[in-house]
Amino acid sequence: MTRFFMAGTNLGGGTAIIRGRDAEHVRVLRLKPGEDIVICDGHGTDYYCRMVRVGDGESEAEILRSEPSKSEPTVRTTILAGLPKGERADFLVQKCTEAGAAEIVFFSCTRCVAKAQNIENKLTRWNRIAEEAAKQSGRGVIPQVSYLSDYGEVLNRAVHTDMGLFLYETGDRVPLRAAIESRPGARSAAIITGPEGGFEPFEAELARHAGLNICAMGPRILRCETAPVVALTALMYATWNL
Amino acid sequence: MTRFFMAGTNLGGGTAIIRGRDAEHVRVLRLKPGEDIVICDGHGTDYYCRMVRVGDGESEAEILRSEPSKSEPTVRTTILAGLPKGERADFLVQKCTEAGAAEIVFFSCTRCVAKAQNIENKLTRWNRIAEEAAKQSGRGVIPQVSYLSDYGEVLNRAVHTDMGLFLYETGDRVPLRAAIESRPGARSAAIITGPEGGFEPFEAELARHAGLNICAMGPRILRCETAPVVALTALMYATWNL
Repeated sequence: MTRFFMAGTNLGGGTAIIRGRDAEHVRVLRLKPGEDIVICDGHGTDYYCRMVRVGDGESEAEILRSEPSKSEPTVRTTILAGLPKGERADFLVQKCTEAGAAEIVFFSCTRCVAKAQNIENKLTRWNRIAEEAAKQSGRGVIPQVSYLSDYGEVLNRAVHTDMGLFLYETGDRVPLRAAIESRPGARSAAIITGPEGGFEPFEAELARHAGLNICAMGPRILRCETAPVVALTALMYATWNL
Repeated sequence: MTRFFMAGTNLGGGTAIIRGRDAEHVRVLRLKPGEDIVICDGHGTDYYCRMVRVGDGESEAEILRSEPSKSEPTVRTTILAGLPKGERADFLVQKCTEAGAAEIVFFSCTRCVAKAQNIENKLTRWNRIAEEAAKQSGRGVIPQVSYLSDYGEVLNRAVHTDMGLFLYETGDRVPLRAAIESRPGARSAAIITGPEGGFEPFEAELARHAGLNICAMGPRILRCETAPVVALTALMYATWNL
């Protein structure tokens, strides 16, 4: 059954009204009344529908039933990443979306090389990349990409999940696996990673005092755009979401 | 202590003779006789050395002791990947090197879109990318990148490891985690992934008949350049190498 990502579709009252680009898509695919499709709302719900009417600018489908998307992980994971330069940010958004992130938040910190200029334009670009990657990988949720300038708020976001993982390259740390396995049954998680230059010691100390797990990821040094993908994959694996 | 990757260095008889680019590097860093350095041979051994003589085109160091590189995983993993197009191959080499691959082998199969033209030039490029990534991530081994045109030989390479994992998107499969956990204590592994278009069913059947584990990686569809990195990360995590 064909699966559509239709974040803008009106899905109220047992009927899906398909407009704009999505209506065009339906037309191009020559869908006919009576055919069944799945409409994903981009927020984790799949609607099983039957086409009723296919029009030029608007089509209509009957909603037969809806259920939580089967492709979504059981752990809702937020990636909080120190803003990296240029294409690295694009890469991070695309790969974390494929790997199952629920949300991606870039932030500024002391050693950030990248400047948070034109951040609105960049967010538009990153959200488009997330949407494309979500469609291609069959996600049920389009991860929202946002930006925080306040480091305290970054820590706060992580503290309010079941499992706050702060990845750091030196000092007193637990292995990532030990941290993950210490919180069985977690329904939400946050993964915090630094920018190219890493974190300042005081930033790691703040994270420690906030109660986050300060984690090591083995003896190899990962690039700033690779670390969140690797940590997220580890978490998905550990929670049987891979 | 400064760590050098000196694959070409002569490390015989208790003495390291440093020539060429590496000698230039030593000169630029103004190393002096009596200073201690670590020379990594790119094949998994670290040599702890003391500089004896720093010359224009050649320098010499005394080898104090040698030991296996601490940053190498306990499982020697070969990535066998259906040749992807353009930059995807570069990405795959870089990220699999960071994530701990011992060797990367591209191969051609039925649905490959990329052509194996100018393969020698490409191999030179990929091996340079692997060397750079190995240096940056502190690896003890520079993964060799090679190419196989014979699909049978690809399967054969995987069969001769302790754990042959064939990632496939449909049909009768075991979860990747179940496959990995069924082989505790494995010292070597192979991960086979397809190109953009995936595998033909007969290719998966050949892998099954060869005795490889046909594995699923969850409900999300990963790009061909992402799948090997995710599978390798899962394996590293499961074997405490992350």
